[in-house]
Amino acid sequence: MTGDGGVLRGFARLDIHRSARTGEPEVVFGEGKTPDQVASIVSRLLADTEDPVLVTRATPQQAAVTPGVYDPVGRTIISRARKTGAIAGSVAIVTAGTSDLPVAREAAGTLDALGMAQSVTPDIGVAGLHRALEAVPTLEAASACIVVAGMDGALPSVLAGLLPLPIIAVPTSVGYGAAFEGLAALLAMMASCAPGVAVVNIDSGFGAAMHAMRIANAQ
Amino acid sequence: MTGDGGVLRGFARLDIHRSARTGEPEVVFGEGKTPDQVASIVSRLLADTEDPVLVTRATPQQAAVTPGVYDPVGRTIISRARKTGAIAGSVAIVTAGTSDLPVAREAAGTLDALGMAQSVTPDIGVAGLHRALEAVPTLEAASACIVVAGMDGALPSVLAGLLPLPIIAVPTSVGYGAAFEGLAALLAMMASCAPGVAVVNIDSGFGAAMHAMRIANAQ
Amino acid sequence: MTGDGGVLRGFARLDIHRSARTGEPEVVFGEGKTPDQVASIVSRLLADTEDPVLVTRATPQQAAVTPGVYDPVGRTIISRARKTGAIAGSVAIVTAGTSDLPVAREAAGTLDALGMAQSVTPDIGVAGLHRALEAVPTLEAASACIVVAGMDGALPSVLAGLLPLPIIAVPTSVGYGAAFEGLAALLAMMASCAPGVAVVNIDSGFGAAMHAMRIANAQ
Amino acid sequence: MTGDGGVLRGFARLDIHRSARTGEPEVVFGEGKTPDQVASIVSRLLADTEDPVLVTRATPQQAAVTPGVYDPVGRTIISRARKTGAIAGSVAIVTAGTSDLPVAREAAGTLDALGMAQSVTPDIGVAGLHRALEAVPTLEAASACIVVAGMDGALPSVLAGLLPLPIIAVPTSVGYGAAFEGLAALLAMMASCAPGVAVVNIDSGFGAAMHAMRIANAQ
Amino acid sequence: MTGDGGVLRGFARLDIHRSARTGEPEVVFGEGKTPDQVASIVSRLLADTEDPVLVTRATPQQAAVTPGVYDPVGRTIISRARKTGAIAGSVAIVTAGTSDLPVAREAAGTLDALGMAQSVTPDIGVAGLHRALEAVPTLEAASACIVVAGMDGALPSVLAGLLPLPIIAVPTSVGYGAAFEGLAALLAMMASCAPGVAVVNIDSGFGAAMHAMRIANAQ
Amino acid sequence: MTGDGGVLRGFARLDIHRSARTGEPEVVFGEGKTPDQVASIVSRLLADTEDPVLVTRATPQQAAVTPGVYDPVGRTIISRARKTGAIAGSVAIVTAGTSDLPVAREAAGTLDALGMAQSVTPDIGVAGLHRALEAVPTLEAASACIVVAGMDGALPSVLAGLLPLPIIAVPTSVGYGAAFEGLAALLAMMASCAPGVAVVNIDSGFGAAMHAMRIANAQ
Amino acid sequence: MTGDGGVLRGFARLDIHRSARTGEPEVVFGEGKTPDQVASIVSRLLADTEDPVLVTRATPQQAAVTPGVYDPVGRTIISRARKTGAIAGSVAIVTAGTSDLPVAREAAGTLDALGMAQSVTPDIGVAGLHRALEAVPTLEAASACIVVAGMDGALPSVLAGLLPLPIIAVPTSVGYGAAFEGLAALLAMMASCAPGVAVVNIDSGFGAAMHAMRIANAQ
Amino acid sequence: MTGDGGVLRGFARLDIHRSARTGEPEVVFGEGKTPDQVASIVSRLLADTEDPVLVTRATPQQAAVTPGVYDPVGRTIISRARKTGAIAGSVAIVTAGTSDLPVAREAAGTLDALGMAQSVTPDIGVAGLHRALEAVPTLEAASACIVVAGMDGALPSVLAGLLPLPIIAVPTSVGYGAAFEGLAALLAMMASCAPGVAVVNIDSGFGAAMHAMRIANAQ
Repeated sequence: MTGDGGVLRGFARLDIHRSARTGEPEVVFGEGKTPDQVASIVSRLLADTEDPVLVTRATPQQAAVTPGVYDPVGRTIISRARKTGAIAGSVAIVTAGTSDLPVAREAAGTLDALGMAQSVTPDIGVAGLHRALEAVPTLEAASACIVVAGMDGALPSVLAGLLPLPIIAVPTSVGYGAAFEGLAALLAMMASCAPGVAVVNIDSGFGAAMHAMRIANAQ
Repeated sequence: MTGDGGVLRGFARLDIHRSARTGEPEVVFGEGKTPDQVASIVSRLLADTEDPVLVTRATPQQAAVTPGVYDPVGRTIISRARKTGAIAGSVAIVTAGTSDLPVAREAAGTLDALGMAQSVTPDIGVAGLHRALEAVPTLEAASACIVVAGMDGALPSVLAGLLPLPIIAVPTSVGYGAAFEGLAALLAMMASCAPGVAVVNIDSGFGAAMHAMRIANAQ
Repeated sequence: MTGDGGVLRGFARLDIHRSARTGEPEVVFGEGKTPDQVASIVSRLLADTEDPVLVTRATPQQAAVTPGVYDPVGRTIISRARKTGAIAGSVAIVTAGTSDLPVAREAAGTLDALGMAQSVTPDIGVAGLHRALEAVPTLEAASACIVVAGMDGALPSVLAGLLPLPIIAVPTSVGYGAAFEGLAALLAMMASCAPGVAVVNIDSGFGAAMHAMRIANAQ
Repeated sequence: MTGDGGVLRGFARLDIHRSARTGEPEVVFGEGKTPDQVASIVSRLLADTEDPVLVTRATPQQAAVTPGVYDPVGRTIISRARKTGAIAGSVAIVTAGTSDLPVAREAAGTLDALGMAQSVTPDIGVAGLHRALEAVPTLEAASACIVVAGMDGALPSVLAGLLPLPIIAVPTSVGYGAAFEGLAALLAMMASCAPGVAVVNIDSGFGAAMHAMRIANAQ
Repeated sequence: MTGDGGVLRGFARLDIHRSARTGEPEVVFGEGKTPDQVASIVSRLLADTEDPVLVTRATPQQAAVTPGVYDPVGRTIISRARKTGAIAGSVAIVTAGTSDLPVAREAAGTLDALGMAQSVTPDIGVAGLHRALEAVPTLEAASACIVVAGMDGALPSVLAGLLPLPIIAVPTSVGYGAAFEGLAALLAMMASCAPGVAVVNIDSGFGAAMHAMRIANAQ
Repeated sequence: MTGDGGVLRGFARLDIHRSARTGEPEVVFGEGKTPDQVASIVSRLLADTEDPVLVTRATPQQAAVTPGVYDPVGRTIISRARKTGAIAGSVAIVTAGTSDLPVAREAAGTLDALGMAQSVTPDIGVAGLHRALEAVPTLEAASACIVVAGMDGALPSVLAGLLPLPIIAVPTSVGYGAAFEGLAALLAMMASCAPGVAVVNIDSGFGAAMHAMRIANAQ
Repeated sequence: MTGDGGVLRGFARLDIHRSARTGEPEVVFGEGKTPDQVASIVSRLLADTEDPVLVTRATPQQAAVTPGVYDPVGRTIISRARKTGAIAGSVAIVTAGTSDLPVAREAAGTLDALGMAQSVTPDIGVAGLHRALEAVPTLEAASACIVVAGMDGALPSVLAGLLPLPIIAVPTSVGYGAAFEGLAALLAMMASCAPGVAVVNIDSGFGAAMHAMRIANAQ
Repeated sequence: MTGDGGVLRGFARLDIHRSARTGEPEVVFGEGKTPDQVASIVSRLLADTEDPVLVTRATPQQAAVTPGVYDPVGRTIISRARKTGAIAGSVAIVTAGTSDLPVAREAAGTLDALGMAQSVTPDIGVAGLHRALEAVPTLEAASACIVVAGMDGALPSVLAGLLPLPIIAVPTSVGYGAAFEGLAALLAMMASCAPGVAVVNIDSGFGAAMHAMRIANAQ
């Protein structure tokens, strides 16, 4: 049907136009794939595109056979990155505890691949409030703040009151019992008493980075 | 059966012994009772006991026909109170927002009836952190701190890191959406990253006051 | 204690600094307040500050005695607004259905008060996909897109794939049965298969607007 | 008791009558069974009936000792199939992502065993909408459409608006965090804003195929 | 942009094509609308289209000012119906209890508007199994069976074993306590031990009817 | 304190009196214990009491070193049983599917240890209703009926309508997806439309047997 | 079809046989019915049957026009009762608090209608344990014990350890906050550490009475 | 910025002041750390501070390489403890069942490290009430009572009625099925009918001990 074909070609074109402008990377979700599958998808992407190429939730086994730089904490393989500064602005990533670090590093690795400056400030949870307070002057300079917290998910509320930035809250599955695999943090962040907080999926450092990148791009 | 009778008499005696010592008040839960029912229960308690007599969740209609002092915010009728200081120590009650005040006032009214000193510091939620920080020097003098908070329930975690006191957290049904009638605050408080926090039922200012009184009595 | 006083004064100062820069409005949450309470808080804010003054979740009764412009759909009273353009950029607000409109209008009213340009495009839900597709060219020009949707919460995922903007998803309590007062939409939006989506509280048009404003300010 | 016996014989007869007409296959649920158990049940069914014989959730170990054709992706062993076309019509099976493929292949294998034509179109999730749009002309020819999707479960709503077919939605446990093992997709699909969608159990490719077969049979 | 325009025009055309073929009615969801709003939307639809026009969840007040036939049990107003038989086949609608009747009648009214034959057999719940057994011979003649049940939601499983038809299960909010407003029935129906059952939203007689109509149309 | 001592001695006496009369067995919950721990507890119980001695949730490893008869399906070790008939009456145990058999066998083993007659009729789920109907005449003779079912938990409702016996429903964790580890069956059984059903914990064949034994004893 | 007719007639006969033997009353669920509907159903049942006739969840308005004895606490109308003792044995009904009394009285009214002896012992909750202990000697004489409790649902566990009877636990919606309308009590009762407890639906005094009657009948 | 620096130094000072006074130990959460990580953190803490040093959730592998005393039941390594009596008062720790012992021992180990007297009384659950009653005279002497219970979580309610002490309830993940990993106990404890109970996180013996220590310190 001619009309439909027009529709579909139209959209393919639209999609390419958007890709070029937003610079969203080609991302491979490593979980559940064999090392060979990861390696072959990455090789194809490197050959067929000029985009940044990133693997998330990557295992050491996948990293061993895949070209790129592996971060064993953030579980990312960056197989091709843009130059830092390709996207203007910078993202301040903070964590409530040290166990939240893998999620923060996933966000950091994603931004690295995209070519956007980032910094990670770990372990400034609200139980020792002076740590968050000390960090404020440094964090203020960023274009957005990714706040990674499990358990009670209280840190985004506190930082939203101290910083004028868009706060991207990432609940983590850190904690036990009533933390219910991140549900407590997720609900607390959604119900935050502080305006300016928006929330992404549990443990999704990648999702937070993508929202941050779009913020930078939209300016 | 003689033996069983001995058992039962023994426990009745034990119970009276405990009552005398702990000074738990005679409490009438007003919700769902008619004004006449409340008035007649209170009259009987005033006549039959020497204990403090308190009505919680009381309506103005109940208060109109019941002897005592009515707090329309905390919804308590204090029909007989002990003298302040009858129980040593004092309780610092704080709230995250102004909407949490009824629950805080229920705790305050309960402590008033028991004869224990209390103070209420409202509206020091974490979105404006300077308010909590300003309150710290005053709060430190108490024997326990009741922290009343809805929405994200973040305030107890913050105060547990600033105060050496036992923190009695009261989640409230304040908030909408993902606050889920207090569930978000309850889970966040249970999963608090700060040690020293214990939690009572949603909206239970009364329960928090009773735990605080037992803390004072146990010393 | 001298040191503590320094701490507290320091933070008060920091807070004022931030306020001035971010331009967050003085907001009165109307729900549960009497008309007189709303009117008197608004009068005081108009007298004491130069900030925009906004009432959300306002009833007609509150609006009748409170100075300002009332939007009965969005339930906002704008008692003092900044000039449009005071904050650069613009926000595209869309809804999946007509029942989502009050939440969208709350976001719009908040942005109006802040002085940030906005547009509302209602009823472009995914069951009639051509409506979303038609809207894309218009929406692309904004600095952020607020997507308001109840029931299955599918629209943010679709728009995130069509637009390069940061997507601020607002689940609504629209729908019945398994929509569970917005829980279905909330979970679907959190679990979105499309990167770039961040989520605020159920029915929180205000929260979405504040995140959008911070995005604009952070640029 | 004579009467009861009549009842029971009556029902046995009714059941056989229905079996013959609907052609529901003899299905062995492989999960939790030893390879030997599977093999011996299958052998008995092949010997005792003339129906199609199918194993679902089969492991490679079970497949190694059981007669039939094994699909390691869909985890089905087809030990005896009807000829394609034995049941008129055809079923279009689509998936939102590549991780949903095992569930789609389980549906496909079930239909193969029953003798009903099917096609699988993977990876047309709503984040890249042009893929669903491109598939529409092909899908329209089917008698029913099985839509397999995890995470936000948005694809059935979108396809219900594009296709006049009965949509059989299968939520999958694909996704993490707020996807909550398929709960997010299940609720979103139940609350779908698009009419014509009905939902089967999480990951139940088999259940979707059975509903599709009954649709074909009922015509 | 020329290409985008082509896309959008294409889709508008596609949509009209589908509408004409599937005969989905113009439906007004009455809940939350004023009588005047309902009346004016209906008048416009009657004037602008030739489609069937239906109001669901309609109140007596809405019915009083809206043209059409009102069913106070099913809460539908049929303002324009197709002739019965316009869509071939028939739908057997059954309920577990008498309290499920409004949902069944909503399905019936929807099918009436569409011009598809239907019958309603109420109160054949599994606690008195002879009632379902007696109904089987009548139900067998239909092209699909809509099973409306609250509480334990057991009836669809039973009927799926007795009838070769596609079973469209509608959980209802009938019941109290652990029925949890239809959640118990919904989960039970999803987890049904009988193949061939697909489920629509709680209390959604309309949704069930639309799936049934698509089944008939797809043949 | 003399009085308290009297209380406590009194209760110890009461407890022994009850034990003697009800014949509740000494039960060892095997899960999480080492084989040696199980063996040594059992040996002590055999030496110190004359009661039946039973291990539930026992592993083959525990059985290998513990005196008694092991049922690998029901995971019970009966180390000392009363003579059948020690408790009058009999219990009819039925299951919906073959996967529910371990739970049924746990109930059977418990009753064997107690000396109460029992029979197990597996696999009479409602999807093939003739199986339940055929079983009715046999089941009617019992003093109570334990109904073990996972997935939709529909069988107890059906049997409660066919049998005059007290129905003890045991939800099982059999099923996947929306069965949610037995939650769907549990809620459905609680919300059963048939009077006379009472429910015990998920997978608790033991709990069901104890309730059945008390029924027999209470007569 | 002749065979089917035989089946159905057979079952109708079976059902009547059971009815006659178990003496289950004709029960009208009053909730949601008009006074006239209740009155006319009751009149018909009185005319057409010789069974006990009972209305549950009855309003005063329904009682005003319906023949029978109304209990405004238990919300039952007994329009025709059997003579006490028609069913042998007796049921001890206890409640944890005074607010649980309506549910207990519903159970009592049901047993009154059936002709089975019952007693109600209210307000023996575990917070004042001597009350339960005092009640034990009286309760022991019954054939079953119905334990009605909201909030923490702890009383059934305690009584199961003190009494050799089958314990029928009824969770109630009494309590607030984390009681979650009876869910806390329901889960606690299901997970009871004491053997012999079986649970019926939240607030279902009627369901508990029916299980108790079947216990008596089965002896 | 000078002012901010003042703020931060102020808070650092405040924090140290509090630490010194409350004596909160340096705690290492062992779960998820390698033995080497634990050993090196502990060594640093021993070298750098004079505080008690404690590892919780420690594995035997961690204990093998870390200086200190390992409790394999409570999974604590005490690497440096204060002298018992360093904190006045004592804590009575009780458990409902033997499976709750690890959580009780975690609380005990924490108090040992802090230098506060404690006793553990296991296995006094409410199913055998005489055990709790026998323990009362001993427990009364403590300054607080930690009650560790899984399954139905009934023990805190019972003990709150027998003891005048602050009750710190710890729900545990002990139990199966409807215990839902501690959720049943958590909700029951929150909804407790007995005043004076406050609740900490599931399985958090450490959290309970910290609340108890603060109670002692606050006196």
